[in-house]
Amino acid sequence: YGGINTFAHLPHVFCLSQPSETFDIALIGAPFDTATSYRPGARFGPRALRAGSQRQIPAASYNALTGVNPYASWAKITDCGDIPLTSFSSELALAQMTSAFEEIMTHKTPSGGSPLLVTLGGDHSIILGALRAVNKIHGQVAVLHFDAHLDTWDPRFYVGTPFTHGTMLNLAGREGLISNNSNVHAGLRTALVGMGDYRDDTEQGWLRIGSEDIDDLGAKGVVEKIVQRLKGKKVYLSFDIDTLDPAVAPGTGTPEVGGWTMREVKRILRGITTAEDVELVGMDIVEVAPAYDNQGEITALAGAQVVFEVLSGYVKKGELAGKKAA
Amino acid sequence: YGGINTFAHLPHVFCLSQPSETFDIALIGAPFDTATSYRPGARFGPRALRAGSQRQIPAASYNALTGVNPYASWAKITDCGDIPLTSFSSELALAQMTSAFEEIMTHKTPSGGSPLLVTLGGDHSIILGALRAVNKIHGQVAVLHFDAHLDTWDPRFYVGTPFTHGTMLNLAGREGLISNNSNVHAGLRTALVGMGDYRDDTEQGWLRIGSEDIDDLGAKGVVEKIVQRLKGKKVYLSFDIDTLDPAVAPGTGTPEVGGWTMREVKRILRGITTAEDVELVGMDIVEVAPAYDNQGEITALAGAQVVFEVLSGYVKKGELAGKKAA
Amino acid sequence: YGGINTFAHLPHVFCLSQPSETFDIALIGAPFDTATSYRPGARFGPRALRAGSQRQIPAASYNALTGVNPYASWAKITDCGDIPLTSFSSELALAQMTSAFEEIMTHKTPSGGSPLLVTLGGDHSIILGALRAVNKIHGQVAVLHFDAHLDTWDPRFYVGTPFTHGTMLNLAGREGLISNNSNVHAGLRTALVGMGDYRDDTEQGWLRIGSEDIDDLGAKGVVEKIVQRLKGKKVYLSFDIDTLDPAVAPGTGTPEVGGWTMREVKRILRGITTAEDVELVGMDIVEVAPAYDNQGEITALAGAQVVFEVLSGYVKKGELAGKKAA
Amino acid sequence: YGGINTFAHLPHVFCLSQPSETFDIALIGAPFDTATSYRPGARFGPRALRAGSQRQIPAASYNALTGVNPYASWAKITDCGDIPLTSFSSELALAQMTSAFEEIMTHKTPSGGSPLLVTLGGDHSIILGALRAVNKIHGQVAVLHFDAHLDTWDPRFYVGTPFTHGTMLNLAGREGLISNNSNVHAGLRTALVGMGDYRDDTEQGWLRIGSEDIDDLGAKGVVEKIVQRLKGKKVYLSFDIDTLDPAVAPGTGTPEVGGWTMREVKRILRGITTAEDVELVGMDIVEVAPAYDNQGEITALAGAQVVFEVLSGYVKKGELAGKKAA
Amino acid sequence: YGGINTFAHLPHVFCLSQPSETFDIALIGAPFDTATSYRPGARFGPRALRAGSQRQIPAASYNALTGVNPYASWAKITDCGDIPLTSFSSELALAQMTSAFEEIMTHKTPSGGSPLLVTLGGDHSIILGALRAVNKIHGQVAVLHFDAHLDTWDPRFYVGTPFTHGTMLNLAGREGLISNNSNVHAGLRTALVGMGDYRDDTEQGWLRIGSEDIDDLGAKGVVEKIVQRLKGKKVYLSFDIDTLDPAVAPGTGTPEVGGWTMREVKRILRGITTAEDVELVGMDIVEVAPAYDNQGEITALAGAQVVFEVLSGYVKKGELAGKKAA
Amino acid sequence: YGGINTFAHLPHVFCLSQPSETFDIALIGAPFDTATSYRPGARFGPRALRAGSQRQIPAASYNALTGVNPYASWAKITDCGDIPLTSFSSELALAQMTSAFEEIMTHKTPSGGSPLLVTLGGDHSIILGALRAVNKIHGQVAVLHFDAHLDTWDPRFYVGTPFTHGTMLNLAGREGLISNNSNVHAGLRTALVGMGDYRDDTEQGWLRIGSEDIDDLGAKGVVEKIVQRLKGKKVYLSFDIDTLDPAVAPGTGTPEVGGWTMREVKRILRGITTAEDVELVGMDIVEVAPAYDNQGEITALAGAQVVFEVLSGYVKKGELAGKKAA
Ligand SMILES: [Mn+2]
Ligand SMILES: [Mn+2]
Ligand SMILES: [Mn+2]
Ligand SMILES: [Mn+2]
Ligand SMILES: [Mn+2]
Ligand SMILES: [Mn+2]
Ligand SMILES: [Mn+2]
Ligand SMILES: [Mn+2]
Ligand SMILES: [Mn+2]
Ligand SMILES: [Mn+2]
Ligand SMILES: [Mn+2]
Ligand SMILES: [Mn+2]
Repeated sequence: YGGINTFAHLPHVFCLSQPSETFDIALIGAPFDTATSYRPGARFGPRALRAGSQRQIPAASYNALTGVNPYASWAKITDCGDIPLTSFSSELALAQMTSAFEEIMTHKTPSGGSPLLVTLGGDHSIILGALRAVNKIHGQVAVLHFDAHLDTWDPRFYVGTPFTHGTMLNLAGREGLISNNSNVHAGLRTALVGMGDYRDDTEQGWLRIGSEDIDDLGAKGVVEKIVQRLKGKKVYLSFDIDTLDPAVAPGTGTPEVGGWTMREVKRILRGITTAEDVELVGMDIVEVAPAYDNQGEITALAGAQVVFEVLSGYVKKGELAGKKAA
Repeated sequence: YGGINTFAHLPHVFCLSQPSETFDIALIGAPFDTATSYRPGARFGPRALRAGSQRQIPAASYNALTGVNPYASWAKITDCGDIPLTSFSSELALAQMTSAFEEIMTHKTPSGGSPLLVTLGGDHSIILGALRAVNKIHGQVAVLHFDAHLDTWDPRFYVGTPFTHGTMLNLAGREGLISNNSNVHAGLRTALVGMGDYRDDTEQGWLRIGSEDIDDLGAKGVVEKIVQRLKGKKVYLSFDIDTLDPAVAPGTGTPEVGGWTMREVKRILRGITTAEDVELVGMDIVEVAPAYDNQGEITALAGAQVVFEVLSGYVKKGELAGKKAA
Repeated sequence: YGGINTFAHLPHVFCLSQPSETFDIALIGAPFDTATSYRPGARFGPRALRAGSQRQIPAASYNALTGVNPYASWAKITDCGDIPLTSFSSELALAQMTSAFEEIMTHKTPSGGSPLLVTLGGDHSIILGALRAVNKIHGQVAVLHFDAHLDTWDPRFYVGTPFTHGTMLNLAGREGLISNNSNVHAGLRTALVGMGDYRDDTEQGWLRIGSEDIDDLGAKGVVEKIVQRLKGKKVYLSFDIDTLDPAVAPGTGTPEVGGWTMREVKRILRGITTAEDVELVGMDIVEVAPAYDNQGEITALAGAQVVFEVLSGYVKKGELAGKKAA
Repeated sequence: YGGINTFAHLPHVFCLSQPSETFDIALIGAPFDTATSYRPGARFGPRALRAGSQRQIPAASYNALTGVNPYASWAKITDCGDIPLTSFSSELALAQMTSAFEEIMTHKTPSGGSPLLVTLGGDHSIILGALRAVNKIHGQVAVLHFDAHLDTWDPRFYVGTPFTHGTMLNLAGREGLISNNSNVHAGLRTALVGMGDYRDDTEQGWLRIGSEDIDDLGAKGVVEKIVQRLKGKKVYLSFDIDTLDPAVAPGTGTPEVGGWTMREVKRILRGITTAEDVELVGMDIVEVAPAYDNQGEITALAGAQVVFEVLSGYVKKGELAGKKAA
Repeated sequence: YGGINTFAHLPHVFCLSQPSETFDIALIGAPFDTATSYRPGARFGPRALRAGSQRQIPAASYNALTGVNPYASWAKITDCGDIPLTSFSSELALAQMTSAFEEIMTHKTPSGGSPLLVTLGGDHSIILGALRAVNKIHGQVAVLHFDAHLDTWDPRFYVGTPFTHGTMLNLAGREGLISNNSNVHAGLRTALVGMGDYRDDTEQGWLRIGSEDIDDLGAKGVVEKIVQRLKGKKVYLSFDIDTLDPAVAPGTGTPEVGGWTMREVKRILRGITTAEDVELVGMDIVEVAPAYDNQGEITALAGAQVVFEVLSGYVKKGELAGKKAA
Repeated sequence: YGGINTFAHLPHVFCLSQPSETFDIALIGAPFDTATSYRPGARFGPRALRAGSQRQIPAASYNALTGVNPYASWAKITDCGDIPLTSFSSELALAQMTSAFEEIMTHKTPSGGSPLLVTLGGDHSIILGALRAVNKIHGQVAVLHFDAHLDTWDPRFYVGTPFTHGTMLNLAGREGLISNNSNVHAGLRTALVGMGDYRDDTEQGWLRIGSEDIDDLGAKGVVEKIVQRLKGKKVYLSFDIDTLDPAVAPGTGTPEVGGWTMREVKRILRGITTAEDVELVGMDIVEVAPAYDNQGEITALAGAQVVFEVLSGYVKKGELAGKKAA
């Protein structure tokens, strides 16, 4: 509970002003929520996630089920702080974050590669900037999208701006940033305008795994279906906290009842991130709005754990591939 | 988040003073909690449920799993506001609500039939008035009672009045309002005075499905068992929010640990309301007490979703039976 | 606690689509918070204020100290519902609200005059639209601005847009909507960029009464100073809930410790609104953000009371001027 | 924080079944809230008040300003537990509590006198039973009524029962239990049906001190006015927690903004209870509803302190009159 | 909701000062949290658990699935109040609680045997004192340890004291209090220092059942595995509330996402406590920290239910063994 | 709301490992609460205070009433992070913090003097280490102690350790760290063991200003009395957040009703810190326990403001003495 709160007590460098700084994994906060359609407050997500990660102590973060301690490994992980973002203009904020994400992605790993981008949101719209940056390095990626919602809606349905937390995956597709035949939604259960939403979504290259599907497939079946879809792709994993049931993650802006539990999600994330043919190039955790969290801060804990699980798989695979601590 | 909060932004008419108003489905609040035995506050349930329904926007409420948008269909749905009810006297309140429910049930659908009565509670006692009104139109109905509790207890056990939220189903049976051989409890897990409670309950015509039974039967098995019981009957569906686990629905007066999740409940409700031989004539959602809800208002969200799921099934079946939007 | 929640149970007409509707006083919600600089959430202010006003029952709302029941008087008061506003674009929202406020101000009182505009915010930026509308009818008005903050800051200090909840009074001045020599800040205690802020503010025509000034002047002295300033003017009264101490009104976006209490504020409002030479033409209550309110909803109660006190004074003066209930 | 929670760790005897038990001061809980008009929950008041009193440790409860430790003195103080009360029927509950209070008042002090009755409410209606019991021993008493509300309203205004938390002082007057010329309201600020409420109240024998009067009189002036009124009378002191500002005591059912602070109230209570000619014969603290209290439990703390302050004055006066610890 | 809060309204005797008092089951609170590593507050656990048990009314506590009412049976159950414990020194507190637990265990049952010890924690460290006391009577016991954490960590990892809530099972092993080949962890999911933690744990005699294992084994399989391990042993059951998912039990100090639900836990507890060859000699419920619980007090409810379920099994087995109410 | 949370966005250096780092003012967190007697949780005080200071932006922190921006001035202010402290042993923690505070005080200002020590607590016991460190540089200091409590109690009254948050000023006196004739308590209102507490306190060199004294003296009178006492001394200012009324600062461990408001405290702090003959050498803000704060985080805001006000006075006086920004 002590110390300036960086994520998991990791070292902090404000990477945006230190271009020569190297790291294997860059954590960066994107405190923005102007693209939210209902309850705002995700601008405080980065603070909440860092607070929620304080029991992740590098010296005691061995993940027994994955078989690795992601914070004591070959990987140099840096908490790059937050991107300065205006809340007054979505357009300007999009420009600001795009530029910052791109800047992060120009950094090198100690061995000269490109780092894994890990964003602490912020509402879900921040993925557009992140995908632009990832795309610049990696080209088109497949998106694994955990969410209760589609987020591929046509901007026409929205008043005031095309850039919202319900449309940015549609925009990403139009900009050619992502695959048009290998993306996946997982945890879906939103109401729709109509079945046309699904047709549009399919055309944009998405496979849909609904929240209730896990009752038929089991976590294992969900993993298989996702891995099948992503196999051989560069993958960007995006985790909207509203994937989880509101009982598990009340602190979010557009909660949908009937979601997954963290026991399920941990299994699924472990399965996917350690799968052989899935190459992770970026991830985010978004839509954590602490004003709606409960006194025990369970939403923030869940969000911080999502990062821990994904990093565990990523670092484990590096380890298996022969990477060693310097 | 804008606008005067009617349920799901539906049109509001104070039906009690507009006898000629027609509707296929009448929503009406019953803000009453004097029959509560432990934590009061369900008198604010109607307000909480309306607030919790605000993301149910008629233009975007297509239920993908049911295949219908209940708010954009053949059905004319009206939010009739609340019944004015005293909190000082259970007896007087019972008279007030009985008269109001009966008044609602004298209204006609646009095509000349009887509307579906949907009550936003209030504590569970309000069902007695609703059943009296439904009975006047439909005769004896089978009750599908989602609840952690029996609510068929003998009024002798209670001090001060026979009319409480633990006895009203017993009273309904004595008044001959409900079937004496085809009712169902679902989600049951309350402690008892003794096994005699179950014997009495059976004699009153109830089948009991316990909360843990779903672990053996699955949601599908639960649906089958219920549909088997209700087949061919006119059914009144009553949903006590304490059916849900306190983690899912903390905002209630007599929470019982070990309940169902909304993922389970959504499946069950879909299965039952779309079953061929089950004819719904009324429903309620009761025991939402927002003072005990958490900051994310998850209990209210769950309660509002219960209404959405039941209406989806009801409207879908109407659609399948050939009903069309005017 | 029963019934669809209009403000103080007043009759609801969606005035924006009913141009011929008359009223002496129009209440209208402006659910918007995209111009907020810190904690968002004031978009839920109208809902919170309406909930907080539910114990203001027209039949029992006699204000003993003012000597009037504002809800049972000569004045026809209508709750016009909320203005539909986008949260995605400040510019578009400003256009939307300007047009709506202007529309409201084109309505007539039953006796053919112009109604009093009462806005339920929303963040403070909504005043710009309101002042545009009021100005169209009344010309330049003096603004009585209760706030911990100046809100006359130069838009240059803000990134992304000139239109924020800290600059809109500066914009109003530039647009010529308000007096340049008779405005008043009351309750001020914000930190500044520097003393230049005060020089700019003075040049824009403002007198500043600091939060601590009441300890020297007393509530009576504060009233005198304000009335002296406003005497003979048409006055628009704007009440930022952060005028109050955070202990009294925690539910707001940019709280400043050391504010006023409601006992003080009630006295001040009574003094000003019943003063002979002060002619009120509009008011608002802004910056109520219920996500930060406490379980007892004290911020919403305070905000609703501010409306009640101002309306009491306004109606009383009408009564003294000979207005009678129809 | 340890031990079974009796009030201030005082010894517990369930006095109602121990008629020969003696005590100088009897504390008894009245967990009842069916006579509440808005937010219920005061039935949990006794539990909250006992929890809020846990830092009142008998060995360290010396009140420096009064000059006494009420829990280590001549006075034998017993926590008598709670009266078993139904919530289902106001009438029956009134009978139950009347009988219990009368039973308590038949107990003797160790020296053969009558004990001081101290009730932990419950909503305010419980005073009627308490006054009946006090009246049986002491005849007509003057009531010192701290409250934001009148509570002398005519039962005609209420639907369902004459016995409510807004009418019971009217009923007490009709029953001849209290003085008809020496009662006092302190802290008053409720809205009225009309000025007739004040006329009725005056006729029932009440003097009114409004919440804002303290700004003119000071705490000292308030004390003088009250003592002047009560001088020479047997006095029953009733403290509705809504006397306090909602910022100070949010956990209550019918909060009214603009109330007193505990710093003011402590001074006033000390002044009155140590005044020479005021003879206290009973007291209560009512309307504490913990569901609306904040996480820091400040309402319960305030309520428990009111008891501590009154007992300090009472015990001090006994000490000055020569009473000694046995 | 009425009455001084003893656990489940059971009779209270402060057993520590009444050595001749007999009981079959002793409930005792251990309000201590100085051995907590993260969020403190479990010192208020006993108060919270007693409040959370108030709906367990002896006359209506028949457990239908176990077939017994533990509070109306052969077993005399006493709430012994709390052990007075310092918070300032872990060492002194350990001495205090050891002595108190030993004192409780010297009491006799009405029929001359040794009582079942039931401790309401407090943080988990309190088990060390309890095990010392149980060991004095029963010799080495097998520990069934429900927890997200190992709690067998080597004291070397901790700074300041060997006695913490993460090391006390290691200490218990070193003191020879517990079996070194038949203990079980259930619900485990903590991060580790490294796999060495598991090796140490195994050497100390522990079997580990992870939180996710239930997804493969089912509750039934978990029961079988545990019973297999404990068969024929005297068993001490310790329940750390963080076994439960944070959604189910947010009110605890070191929450770990991905835990069990109460529906699962109830099944498991029933299975184990009614198993033929498992002889229970003591239990505790620990780590309930109400400051982090939500407004609905769901953590306290869950903790109180754990006690109820274990007592149900224990009393049922006594009944089956021929014990009868006196 | 963005960025890693240092206090007021000030630069962070972990000073304890950077001995050559210079600063005029060192902020350092002391996350410790094992010396707390009632509600623990102040170990999270530093995190809460840093979060509560986020609206103190260096570029816009001009204090209009003091006439200075403390964060844009001659003073180099550094957030030194937190002292690593065990929670398991008060004795060890005292040694750890003493050593850390002494280390901080060996640092130099850029101009070669000694820095001002500003500690973010932690419970109040942390002052003992701070006073040891300050004493090493400055010799005996006068303590200005804002608190509801004496904190000079004799360690004999406490069980387990002499070092608690109620005794450390007594210990400081015995160690000769502080003046024995010029200390001041301000805001006092605690209950006592007896009047002997005051005699002891006087003998230890303290003057007592009670909470209610401000009603007679006014804030100005309080300032005068304090300045009179401290004139010509080196002063250490300690601010226990429980000085404030629980309505203003609910988030603390031993709240006492009837405290001061922030409007009063701001005046008093300004008066004292800008007084000519008062030389500040250190300060702390202690006892902020966020688990008990409300959703609006008002306690943290108040605590952060106390730091801002004291620094404003300190920096202003430096400015008046001719110090200039480098
Ligand atoms: Mn999303
Ligand atoms: Mn989503
Ligand atoms: Mn029910
Ligand atoms: Mn129920
Ligand atoms: Mn403003
Ligand atoms: Mn403001
Ligand atoms: Mn009252
Ligand atoms: Mn009242
Ligand atoms: Mn444990
Ligand atoms: Mn644990
Ligand atoms: Mn202190
Ligand atoms: Mn203190």
